[in-house]
Amino acid sequence: MKIKVIITGGTIDKSYDMQNGKMHFVDSHVPAMLAEARCKADYELDKIMLKDSHDLTDSDRLEMFSCCVQADQNKIIITHGTDMMVETARFLAEKNIEKTIVLTGAMIPYVFEKTDSLFNLGTAFSAVQSMPVGVYIAMNGKVFNADNVVKNRQENVFEYLT
Amino acid sequence: MKIKVIITGGTIDKSYDMQNGKMHFVDSHVPAMLAEARCKADYELDKIMLKDSHDLTDSDRLEMFSCCVQADQNKIIITHGTDMMVETARFLAEKNIEKTIVLTGAMIPYVFEKTDSLFNLGTAFSAVQSMPVGVYIAMNGKVFNADNVVKNRQENVFEYLT
Amino acid sequence: MKIKVIITGGTIDKSYDMQNGKMHFVDSHVPAMLAEARCKADYELDKIMLKDSHDLTDSDRLEMFSCCVQADQNKIIITHGTDMMVETARFLAEKNIEKTIVLTGAMIPYVFEKTDSLFNLGTAFSAVQSMPVGVYIAMNGKVFNADNVVKNRQENVFEYLT
Amino acid sequence: MKIKVIITGGTIDKSYDMQNGKMHFVDSHVPAMLAEARCKADYELDKIMLKDSHDLTDSDRLEMFSCCVQADQNKIIITHGTDMMVETARFLAEKNIEKTIVLTGAMIPYVFEKTDSLFNLGTAFSAVQSMPVGVYIAMNGKVFNADNVVKNRQENVFEYLT
Repeated sequence: MKIKVIITGGTIDKSYDMQNGKMHFVDSHVPAMLAEARCKADYELDKIMLKDSHDLTDSDRLEMFSCCVQADQNKIIITHGTDMMVETARFLAEKNIEKTIVLTGAMIPYVFEKTDSLFNLGTAFSAVQSMPVGVYIAMNGKVFNADNVVKNRQENVFEYLT
Repeated sequence: MKIKVIITGGTIDKSYDMQNGKMHFVDSHVPAMLAEARCKADYELDKIMLKDSHDLTDSDRLEMFSCCVQADQNKIIITHGTDMMVETARFLAEKNIEKTIVLTGAMIPYVFEKTDSLFNLGTAFSAVQSMPVGVYIAMNGKVFNADNVVKNRQENVFEYLT
Repeated sequence: MKIKVIITGGTIDKSYDMQNGKMHFVDSHVPAMLAEARCKADYELDKIMLKDSHDLTDSDRLEMFSCCVQADQNKIIITHGTDMMVETARFLAEKNIEKTIVLTGAMIPYVFEKTDSLFNLGTAFSAVQSMPVGVYIAMNGKVFNADNVVKNRQENVFEYLT
Repeated sequence: MKIKVIITGGTIDKSYDMQNGKMHFVDSHVPAMLAEARCKADYELDKIMLKDSHDLTDSDRLEMFSCCVQADQNKIIITHGTDMMVETARFLAEKNIEKTIVLTGAMIPYVFEKTDSLFNLGTAFSAVQSMPVGVYIAMNGKVFNADNVVKNRQENVFEYLT
């Protein structure tokens, strides 16, 4: 396997809870997404948590770091909530891991009829295979360096810092 | 605009014809796909034809070539039918255009509930921004060089030649 | 117009709010649903509110009642939240309106890839045209009399009381 | 079981064939549709063929007739291609079966993102439970008597004959 996909949760993986009309985690949709995408890249999935990025702790980020370091692969995709994606990207960037790490996620969960989730996952698969060592965010059709990206919370899009 | 998206048709853009139960072209779905994807990359669309790749002539490929050369952009995505995508990629590669050109498409049209189209378009947007000058095919979660790709028509997947 | 469709909100009409990851009302999906359904029945839409059924007041139910009575039509569909659908059905049944009134809604909003909303709306359109004067709930492929239906909140299905 | 659902094929059950870009039969989608619809009516499925209605023979229609007669149920839904739905409805109506028989189908297959299939199946489930003995077609939000319906092939809608 050449690519490790670390699943941590976020909007992309939310499901609808009929009991209360809210979105919640049941299980990851990433396996179904990659089947629908007919993705034949050489990848391995590793679901380490299913969390809103707001709920991520330093301990969770350390687990992601450890998972990146210990992976057999040098190319790593992390699916992640968008609200704190920049924070995790910077956290990992500071660790100077000698791997290509691409974070992605979605503004609209995969289970909706219209969703950015499949497109974003596609950009991440391509980026992780072509970008040099470093930490990146693949969102909105762009690939950002961890140190030059911010989430615009009014527009719900990722933008360059400078 | 930094990216030119040249639309030529193919499975990705087929619609259902109620009159006879067959798939046909009405108009391109690429604008709707990029809206759904929340793509904010700096792109410009140019629909030059809507054709099955089986129906493409040398004249059509020359038009694509000309469109690539004349574009203001150095980063070009071509949406294309999968059956003859490799042939067009090689045709363009032989022209030695000093641009990054990425062909993509879909095995299942965008209008189906389950489709590889959004994922593939995502891989193309990422690849065109990160790959060096050359002609590539972005399909099945991989980015192939034009001279090292073949469509496996039994499995309906793109594979490395060697 | 032979059928009046009174829109009051409920799960069927919820949309996803990217700002906070919750479901909320933007506008009714019923017009888009009836277009997708290729519904050619002679109907007229009347959106009188967009509310969770939990938030409905007696005043709201009186407005529904008044809307039923004043309608030119004798066949009335009401789209409604499921949690208090039985309560509204009974409220209207007690008014002894000389019309056929069918309440329907959905357990999963229309905007999801998988949803019961179109099927339920179909059952309501058929029921309102074939049932005698009275108040009914069309859910889960069944047509219930207002006085013999309960929502099973564990299973999220509507069932006969007796 | 109170309702028998006889599956005979038609557009509703078509799937996409990646090999040639045409629609074909793989298996019936009706079980998945009724799960998505959260249908809890007391029904039993019986898939007797998967055919375009153009390909139906008198022998096929006799098999449908026989299946209706022999069924334990008095309420029967038949999923059927739209092109010859009227012909089958009249064929069955002439047999004067003492049951309520409702034919339905779709103009757009279930596997598309936008489809009339779930709505139509909903109208059929409601109609079969409320209509008296007879043969009906449930399409376009209406329930037609077998002797007063025609398919308008220009508009692709079912209409009253008179």
